[in-house]
Amino acid sequence: MASRIGREIRLSPVELGSQIAKKVEINLASGNPDPAVMPVKEIEEAYNEVIENIGFKSLIYPGAGGQEELIESINKHFLPLLNVTTKDDMTVVTSGAQHAMELISKYFLENDVVGVENPTFVETFNTMKLRASVSLPFDVKGDGIDVDMVRSLTKVTKIKLLYVIPNCHNPAGVTMSVEKRKEIAELAHESDFFVIEDDPYRPIAGKVPPPIKNFDNWGKVIYVGSFSKILAPGLRVGFAVGDRKIMEKISLLEQLDFSTSTVNQYVVSLLLKKGLIKDLSSRMSEHYSNKMKVLTDSLTENGFDLFNKPSCGFFLLLDLKKDSWSVFREAVKGGLSFVPAKPFFLRGGNTMARLSITNAKEEEIRRGVEILRKSVNQL
Amino acid sequence: MASRIGREIRLSPVELGSQIAKKVEINLASGNPDPAVMPVKEIEEAYNEVIENIGFKSLIYPGAGGQEELIESINKHFLPLLNVTTKDDMTVVTSGAQHAMELISKYFLENDVVGVENPTFVETFNTMKLRASVSLPFDVKGDGIDVDMVRSLTKVTKIKLLYVIPNCHNPAGVTMSVEKRKEIAELAHESDFFVIEDDPYRPIAGKVPPPIKNFDNWGKVIYVGSFSKILAPGLRVGFAVGDRKIMEKISLLEQLDFSTSTVNQYVVSLLLKKGLIKDLSSRMSEHYSNKMKVLTDSLTENGFDLFNKPSCGFFLLLDLKKDSWSVFREAVKGGLSFVPAKPFFLRGGNTMARLSITNAKEEEIRRGVEILRKSVNQL
Repeated sequence: MASRIGREIRLSPVELGSQIAKKVEINLASGNPDPAVMPVKEIEEAYNEVIENIGFKSLIYPGAGGQEELIESINKHFLPLLNVTTKDDMTVVTSGAQHAMELISKYFLENDVVGVENPTFVETFNTMKLRASVSLPFDVKGDGIDVDMVRSLTKVTKIKLLYVIPNCHNPAGVTMSVEKRKEIAELAHESDFFVIEDDPYRPIAGKVPPPIKNFDNWGKVIYVGSFSKILAPGLRVGFAVGDRKIMEKISLLEQLDFSTSTVNQYVVSLLLKKGLIKDLSSRMSEHYSNKMKVLTDSLTENGFDLFNKPSCGFFLLLDLKKDSWSVFREAVKGGLSFVPAKPFFLRGGNTMARLSITNAKEEEIRRGVEILRKSVNQL
Repeated sequence: MASRIGREIRLSPVELGSQIAKKVEINLASGNPDPAVMPVKEIEEAYNEVIENIGFKSLIYPGAGGQEELIESINKHFLPLLNVTTKDDMTVVTSGAQHAMELISKYFLENDVVGVENPTFVETFNTMKLRASVSLPFDVKGDGIDVDMVRSLTKVTKIKLLYVIPNCHNPAGVTMSVEKRKEIAELAHESDFFVIEDDPYRPIAGKVPPPIKNFDNWGKVIYVGSFSKILAPGLRVGFAVGDRKIMEKISLLEQLDFSTSTVNQYVVSLLLKKGLIKDLSSRMSEHYSNKMKVLTDSLTENGFDLFNKPSCGFFLLLDLKKDSWSVFREAVKGGLSFVPAKPFFLRGGNTMARLSITNAKEEEIRRGVEILRKSVNQL
């Protein structure tokens, strides 16, 4: 009765984790930024200023591709802050990075072969998986995706798209080395595939290597950015930037949903022009880095040893050495929620847990890890 | 290289008309509501109130399917105002009606046969057309779609979806009779197809017959509504309501784009609870009805005779009796923009023009029609 996408869509494990997280005391599941540092007041003032100054024009239909004003602000203020270099590229505004992924996948995919990190962020990857014939999982090491594995596969199969999260990986917590970034851009050229560089954490990441896009001289990398981590996810504003010919088509695809709020685009543009986003960027990287240290210290103190130490971002991937859904059920009884990470893996991952540092306060992170320890021990 | 949708997407003629309209003096092209009646101040105040009272929770990720608070407000305050009756139905919040269409089409369609009014609103219909194998056009009469024609076709082919705009049709300006609404609901049951009832104009339409959905006892009609005409399109908030089993799936599909702004949902919910939308409803129908009379009177005075007199909505379809693109080029030189309506037709429509009453003031409508007369005469 339904289309393939209609038949195959499922409730995401992240949604499930979030729903359960609302009911327990300590939330190590959330992908929302820390409310303590969200610029709520500044956003409220920006709505006032935008509607006062721009009036009804801030409330009419958005154009497909984004409001000219925001596109200019991103190009002028945000891309330089992110260290993204462009040539004859085009920026398209989207309703968050997730929507950008949906548009890019909609443009490219029809039963093709896609490549993806194992693990990967399942919600964004779903836009590809539900349209691909085959999804090839590539291992993620401490310095990012196993590029040699990608190279081997490209010799025997034609990959259409490769999806990577180079910084503060969700859920793996790792950041890709500069060398691998160069190699991926070159391999995309040699083996004729496109790369989706999903980089929502860069604005809060502190010092990280340049984007893969900066090493791409052939128009093969589409860079996807977001204001969700640095401002607020509830605005639903993100963007994609890449080769003009492709981005023009992707901007036309926005005619099918016209989903990016006009007034919210003006709000983001204003906050970029005012320099708020630049100011927040350094403060936030320090804030999250401090909280991540609380988590890694607590894990070590409680005898956990199989995890990377993320240098940035919201998430840490922990091997519980026991079935993570069983641990999850115990943990929820104890008042803790996290995300069992099996669904982030195309292969393996049964004992993995994704822990988030955003929602819980430092003391709650410590108590959460203690609950986790007890839950593991009880099995 | 691209998917079918990626290959076949084109710049919409409505977008083209809008872009040109920005450059000329008199705009009879726009689909935006009249700025003179848009509740800009009330929306600004609502943003303040929402962010003050709900704080960071109004700015976190939206849930797939919509915020519980808005869903309740729609069910309690908006559906009764719209005279939409529900049984064990489910309401899903979307980023406007266009996004609802995209989700519904994505759920149902994979090279199926779809039925559509001729003419139809090309932007929403594109979500179906780009996924269907065949699009069957059914004539639109003064009392709506030719139901007998639909019935005949269902005897020889299997239609998956029928797309109709029952009230203040865009672009035809007609409103469907009660009898035809009943017949469509019954035919959908008998011939096993689904109906998308696209009803964005109802909140500003004044007295119109009950929705097709109210005659549907079999879960075959999905009703699509919007806040774009009564509040502001720049909020990007709409909804769809229908059979729970289907709407649950459609709500899961929102995980692929997560595009509906959380704070905007709270703003709409607040304005529903405050009764603003109810108050606006009657005022707006009178306002637009007065402007429509200015247009029809001007057309008659200027010797145009091939048009319906719309009882509601933003649009009137006029037969220019000459190629409408040629007239359009003349009109733009004279300072007038409208939308040549050929692209709204799957069959015919070369001499048709869509005229909008929203953006132009009454005096501009009169002058616009005079320019139109001269432009026609010059060919």
